[in-house]
Amino acid sequence: MNAPTDRKPRTVFFLSDQTGITAETLGRSLLTQFDDTEFRPITVPFIDTIDKAREVAERINETARKEGRRALVFSTLVADEIRGLIEEADCTHMDFFDTFIGPLERELKTRSSHAAGRAHGMHNPDNYSRRIDAMNFALANDDGVTSRNYGQSEVILVGVSRSGKTPTCLYLALHYGIYAANCPLTEDDLEDGKLPPALEEHKHKIFGLTIDPARLQGIRNERRPNSRYSSTRQVLYEVKETEALFRRYGIPFVNTTQTSVEEIAATVLHGTGLERHIR
Amino acid sequence: MNAPTDRKPRTVFFLSDQTGITAETLGRSLLTQFDDTEFRPITVPFIDTIDKAREVAERINETARKEGRRALVFSTLVADEIRGLIEEADCTHMDFFDTFIGPLERELKTRSSHAAGRAHGMHNPDNYSRRIDAMNFALANDDGVTSRNYGQSEVILVGVSRSGKTPTCLYLALHYGIYAANCPLTEDDLEDGKLPPALEEHKHKIFGLTIDPARLQGIRNERRPNSRYSSTRQVLYEVKETEALFRRYGIPFVNTTQTSVEEIAATVLHGTGLERHIR
Repeated sequence: MNAPTDRKPRTVFFLSDQTGITAETLGRSLLTQFDDTEFRPITVPFIDTIDKAREVAERINETARKEGRRALVFSTLVADEIRGLIEEADCTHMDFFDTFIGPLERELKTRSSHAAGRAHGMHNPDNYSRRIDAMNFALANDDGVTSRNYGQSEVILVGVSRSGKTPTCLYLALHYGIYAANCPLTEDDLEDGKLPPALEEHKHKIFGLTIDPARLQGIRNERRPNSRYSSTRQVLYEVKETEALFRRYGIPFVNTTQTSVEEIAATVLHGTGLERHIR
Repeated sequence: MNAPTDRKPRTVFFLSDQTGITAETLGRSLLTQFDDTEFRPITVPFIDTIDKAREVAERINETARKEGRRALVFSTLVADEIRGLIEEADCTHMDFFDTFIGPLERELKTRSSHAAGRAHGMHNPDNYSRRIDAMNFALANDDGVTSRNYGQSEVILVGVSRSGKTPTCLYLALHYGIYAANCPLTEDDLEDGKLPPALEEHKHKIFGLTIDPARLQGIRNERRPNSRYSSTRQVLYEVKETEALFRRYGIPFVNTTQTSVEEIAATVLHGTGLERHIR
């Protein structure tokens, strides 16, 4: 028989002297490998003083006492004194920097700067400008509102309404600095089986998004229940004709049904061979 | 005397059986600790077959031959056979899963699923809906176009034009599923030194953004050179009055000058105590 605590979610701390994004991304990736275990995640960012570190260490110890078992702690803490305080707390502690910095220093034959807060900082004002410009581009060229800037765009996402075009364009902008426009296919386009002329001219830049009809119907139904827009017939028709059109033109496409925005964006980047502008 | 290769950037591979986002996040965070070394990053995502792994291994070996030294390789490769092929290549290899899964299995007393591609997958359709809804909310409530939905928003970002409100709202939406609106302060607001009534009512939800005048001027100058909008006088006035207003109302605020969008978003989340909706 299991102790009752085993059925309760395991508490996980993501700790950082900065935003906590790295610790979270890494920790979450690892935890997805443990399907059968439930986790209760707590992020504590900006632990940049000894006092804050003591407070968190006490919270970790308190968790162990109250829950009858140790929390998992994932961290990116650069300062030795701060990391040391967490290390001494009653937990299973994995610090990502601590683990890898040593081998890297040996390989690079140099000392690391041991400076906190570099991972997501604005090292480079060019990066900042580029991502903002790209974001503004995505916003100004969303949903086919204009075809004027197709010449300037690096990729044009095409797909039925609610297939994920807008979030993917914004993700491409914010994370890779890519100029991405997007355009839905109209019913006229689908009936003709042709790309509109404004797109045809930029065919080589098009990347298609498709989605399983049942999932599309679910999404559309939330927005406009019992409408033609969300009817089985309409959804099946649009998806079938869109995919036929992609094939006819040799347009690469990705099915977004089981796919997160991160994955769609990475697939587009990889599939187009575009260079990211943010390093 | 250094060998000439020492001055060339060191090649770094980020390898993954999925998007590569985790491997990149880890690797880039670590590399920021080595200021004095230049790196040439190459991401190869979707290495999900033995053939693809062989191809990459060959590319890594080729790099070592051509550059006269081994590349750094950061990876998240779940399948043992695929990881093994990279392991055997001529490089300094750090696999993130390989390093941490063992200790986690021991602590959790369970086996990991060893399944590729979970880290950024769409486990949870609720997450997907939430982030899309939040994104649409941010787009519909950008730049003070309407105050109708302030009741529904979880946070309202306020600041001068070009202080980073829109990208932060979109980041909060895409990454945390937070309903974030944003609103600029008009010249009338600044002259009166008062929040507009529509905002005043939701004062407790406001988070302020500010920025150093010199940086703001630089950003504005790129958009509208030699305008009143980008003049020293105007920029100084707006920043001074905005910060005074934040202080008067006890509105928490963050200076975005040296700060990436990730950091601003994490600061807002931490500062407001909002719960993220995406897990």
